[in-house]
Amino acid sequence: MFNEALRKKIKKLQQKKYREEYGLFVVEGVKGVSGALNSNAEIEVVVVEKKKKSADAIRNVVQKVVERKISFEYCLDKDVNKIKSTETFPGILALVKIKNNSIEDLQNDQPIILLDKISDPGNMGTILRTADWFGVGNILVSSDSVDPYNEKVVRASMGSIFRIKLAETDNTANSAKQLKKLGYTVVSLSTTGEDLSKMKPRQKTIYIFGSESHGIRPELEQLSDKMYTISGKGTAESLNVAVSAGILLNKIS
Amino acid sequence: MFNEALRKKIKKLQQKKYREEYGLFVVEGVKGVSGALNSNAEIEVVVVEKKKKSADAIRNVVQKVVERKISFEYCLDKDVNKIKSTETFPGILALVKIKNNSIEDLQNDQPIILLDKISDPGNMGTILRTADWFGVGNILVSSDSVDPYNEKVVRASMGSIFRIKLAETDNTANSAKQLKKLGYTVVSLSTTGEDLSKMKPRQKTIYIFGSESHGIRPELEQLSDKMYTISGKGTAESLNVAVSAGILLNKIS
Repeated sequence: MFNEALRKKIKKLQQKKYREEYGLFVVEGVKGVSGALNSNAEIEVVVVEKKKKSADAIRNVVQKVVERKISFEYCLDKDVNKIKSTETFPGILALVKIKNNSIEDLQNDQPIILLDKISDPGNMGTILRTADWFGVGNILVSSDSVDPYNEKVVRASMGSIFRIKLAETDNTANSAKQLKKLGYTVVSLSTTGEDLSKMKPRQKTIYIFGSESHGIRPELEQLSDKMYTISGKGTAESLNVAVSAGILLNKIS
Repeated sequence: MFNEALRKKIKKLQQKKYREEYGLFVVEGVKGVSGALNSNAEIEVVVVEKKKKSADAIRNVVQKVVERKISFEYCLDKDVNKIKSTETFPGILALVKIKNNSIEDLQNDQPIILLDKISDPGNMGTILRTADWFGVGNILVSSDSVDPYNEKVVRASMGSIFRIKLAETDNTANSAKQLKKLGYTVVSLSTTGEDLSKMKPRQKTIYIFGSESHGIRPELEQLSDKMYTISGKGTAESLNVAVSAGILLNKIS
């Protein structure tokens, strides 16, 4: 039954502290919930808006949920207003367990994308989606970035959050040092440096993208083996970080 | 004086119909207003939040405004709540005249980016900013796209909206035909087609990006001389359109 306790829990999960307390996050929409179902994510419960249960896309998802014996509940119009995180509720959501990967889980001799204080949830989600598109599955996020389990990040990732390996670090410089010792090359994308077109990609590399407003922090710049820049001919001040990541990912994949 | 009439006008300009009626749009923030000042845009009035007037960045802008004899007004806390379009008002805004470029204004033998029913304002603004970064200054927008003078588009463009040439068309297929007759090649970015890495860029080309959910409309696909795709190795369903545009723009610039 969709009861008061579940309603409150979903609402609380819009805050990072409760996501950490419960070890859960919310994914909304058919694409997101399907992404969870098609991955090895552990789903605690799926909630479906009763009046939308016959929509084809939702019915297909519910069928899978039932087959997999995942618990699910219907909710009503009056509940939707209390649990939705955007203007229009897409008719379905799931509560999914957060995987606490460590940096060791990323060490598979493949490239690692390190996001250093990325603050915009749309940018973070788009980077996860783009990394997934190009098959670069290791993402390390600084803990002063926006929380990758924030609902806006999850939404912008379009289900990719379930298909990549995500680890967090509260000391990016230490993590970079640790990976360097294991033979990783450290590459920073910055406004200064050699033109990216000159880069010869190497598998065992950490690529660092810095904060939208402040760039990469100095400790990380110092640790970098190489700095590259995406040169522009025009007059804009900077490139969006998700666009920069896309250009890099296209090059290394 | 910041009076009721000006306050109402600013508020109205959050709607497309009033932007069309007045031929004006609003740009907020130091970056945006500076972008307008450094371009040949006609600025009707600049509004500054009185309590922020001594902040360095704002003071510098105000100095330019005064030098250029552009009319400007201070507003108070109580006004800010009525005119702001986001949670936090960045302390400054300008009302700027919309330039009604026609498709002829874009015909300078340089590439043209055609945005066909792009609906997300963040995507549109990021594409304008990225095009500006790479020095590709001709953008043609279908009139069923999000309005490029929408405040979210303007914000995401980070001032680039003043540095590019923007024209609208209510019939993208006709516009493409017209440009083909003038010797332009029509290239669509799509989920099918040859790999983009194979493309040999040619200056006089229209590059078409389609709707986030439906792709490029069939009439435009049929008109296309070539279709290209950005291949991924991973499992994501699609790439974000602004990221795709960034990868293309990086290639052709």
